[in-house]
Amino acid sequence: MYKEKILNVLRSSCSGFVSGEELARTCGISRTMVWKHIKSLEREGFGIEAVPSRGYRITSAPDILRPEDVRRGLRTKIIGREIHLFHKIASTNTLAMEMAANGTPEGAVVIAEMQTGGKGRLGRTWISPQGNLYLSVVLRPNIPIHKAPLITLTGAVAVASAIRTMCGLEAGIKWPNDILISGKKVSGLLTEMSAEQDRIRHIVLGIGVDVNMEMGELPPDVRSLTTTLAAEAGAKINRTALLQQVLRDLERWYQKFLNNHADVLEEWKKLNMTVGNRITVSGAGEDLDGLAQGVDSDGRLIVRLEDGAIRTIAAGDVTIVKK
Amino acid sequence: MYKEKILNVLRSSCSGFVSGEELARTCGISRTMVWKHIKSLEREGFGIEAVPSRGYRITSAPDILRPEDVRRGLRTKIIGREIHLFHKIASTNTLAMEMAANGTPEGAVVIAEMQTGGKGRLGRTWISPQGNLYLSVVLRPNIPIHKAPLITLTGAVAVASAIRTMCGLEAGIKWPNDILISGKKVSGLLTEMSAEQDRIRHIVLGIGVDVNMEMGELPPDVRSLTTTLAAEAGAKINRTALLQQVLRDLERWYQKFLNNHADVLEEWKKLNMTVGNRITVSGAGEDLDGLAQGVDSDGRLIVRLEDGAIRTIAAGDVTIVKK
Repeated sequence: MYKEKILNVLRSSCSGFVSGEELARTCGISRTMVWKHIKSLEREGFGIEAVPSRGYRITSAPDILRPEDVRRGLRTKIIGREIHLFHKIASTNTLAMEMAANGTPEGAVVIAEMQTGGKGRLGRTWISPQGNLYLSVVLRPNIPIHKAPLITLTGAVAVASAIRTMCGLEAGIKWPNDILISGKKVSGLLTEMSAEQDRIRHIVLGIGVDVNMEMGELPPDVRSLTTTLAAEAGAKINRTALLQQVLRDLERWYQKFLNNHADVLEEWKKLNMTVGNRITVSGAGEDLDGLAQGVDSDGRLIVRLEDGAIRTIAAGDVTIVKK
Repeated sequence: MYKEKILNVLRSSCSGFVSGEELARTCGISRTMVWKHIKSLEREGFGIEAVPSRGYRITSAPDILRPEDVRRGLRTKIIGREIHLFHKIASTNTLAMEMAANGTPEGAVVIAEMQTGGKGRLGRTWISPQGNLYLSVVLRPNIPIHKAPLITLTGAVAVASAIRTMCGLEAGIKWPNDILISGKKVSGLLTEMSAEQDRIRHIVLGIGVDVNMEMGELPPDVRSLTTTLAAEAGAKINRTALLQQVLRDLERWYQKFLNNHADVLEEWKKLNMTVGNRITVSGAGEDLDGLAQGVDSDGRLIVRLEDGAIRTIAAGDVTIVKK
């Protein structure tokens, strides 16, 4: 608690320097305790300069996510009302699903610096080294089961918007759950749910964003299909600020979704890179080639085949055919 | 093992009597061991008569479900390939969902004599005293999420068919998940699932059938809306035989469903008591009055309102208005 307060005072100082005496007075603790907390912050990775007669100054912050930093200035009402941050866990989605089954409220967020068993769609692995964002959000929308895929679309709109806002990059959505920049994958979403026949109990929206990791962390075969925000922007990205923007945009679009699904679908259409393209779809029972014509009101992809027949696709892997 | 063998020999004897010597010889054990197993069967509730120079004879079987009895002559390939029978557990659905998440194969069945936390739709309670059937079946159909409600319809067709076959009663289906006889509820289904955005991981189809319980087991307010098979048939029902028929009919209709959904919908329409009636629907956002016109290809109820408008209902409580 005092450590956070010291950090806040140091961060909000105009000159940068704050004397040990002032820190001690502001926090109501001894100068020895101030010194101990400063050492503790250094151990967390903060660079702190100590100059006689001027005091302490932060010179660098570690690239780690801290719950206090995520909460500071977040200003959301639902998404992020609980933040559970871990250094390394198997899967944020798995933990969030367990927490949701045990009554964790809507908007709770599970975040990890690393995942040892990160999950992708269809039982695939999501490679999850340090430096990226891995988060899962508990949602309890009062919608019928067949509307559940729209939650994935809502999440994709929020993530693409946040990337555009924070990084100024042209992030687009590939149906149903990938975010691409320059044709390469930079983010993926995995929605999981527990449901009865006519009622969703809870949904967990999992979001992975490749932010600052070294490309060497990836196996060679996926490297050419993948990029990171840092690689695209040409500079390291502030993960805390990006995470906050994702949570804010998620709150905004989730609220819009609850009010009127059509608003989300409209934005999705603006951000998507699938509709209007020739595509191939695999894993949907039969492989298809055709023109992606749109999404229906349940979030399914409408494809016009060569012979003019229309197919509506609920699941599958889409490849956009280069023009 | 020897106990089961002794039971089988006694049951398949033409005269009814089998001498202790013959039982000992058939099983390859001593007559003392035969006697011990006979005592054990008596403790399980079997009535066994012992007549000098003739041998042992079964005079009555206890009204309990035994895994060996359920398996004997079942002749299904998938449904019932694993049978897990319990005297008393919280909820067969909850246990089956846990088992399914841990890899239990399709067709595994969890059965309980009693449930202490039996579950109904929408978080309601399913009162589960001794004397009825409570079972949950693990299914892993390769279908998109929006087709999941059809599993409930498939289960309803199977249960209604089994009741008609075994009890000769005019069981009908009230959309989406109740089986009625003479307008009173005799069975309900609760489908639960774990899914990703575009893939069902597993579904548990829970089936409760009110068979032989005393009506006094029910709270007064639901007694007038409920009946049991025994009350309708005027005699106790053999629960083991009924359970086997439910599993057989479930296998048959589930296979048909996987081959062609339309076959199940057609049979559902024959057995259903909702379509063609004036109904009220509550719990679907707004309350509706109208004529139930049919179900669509995803199992949703189509209702024509007074003003001619058509609504498609995914969830809700239906009341059939008396003509």
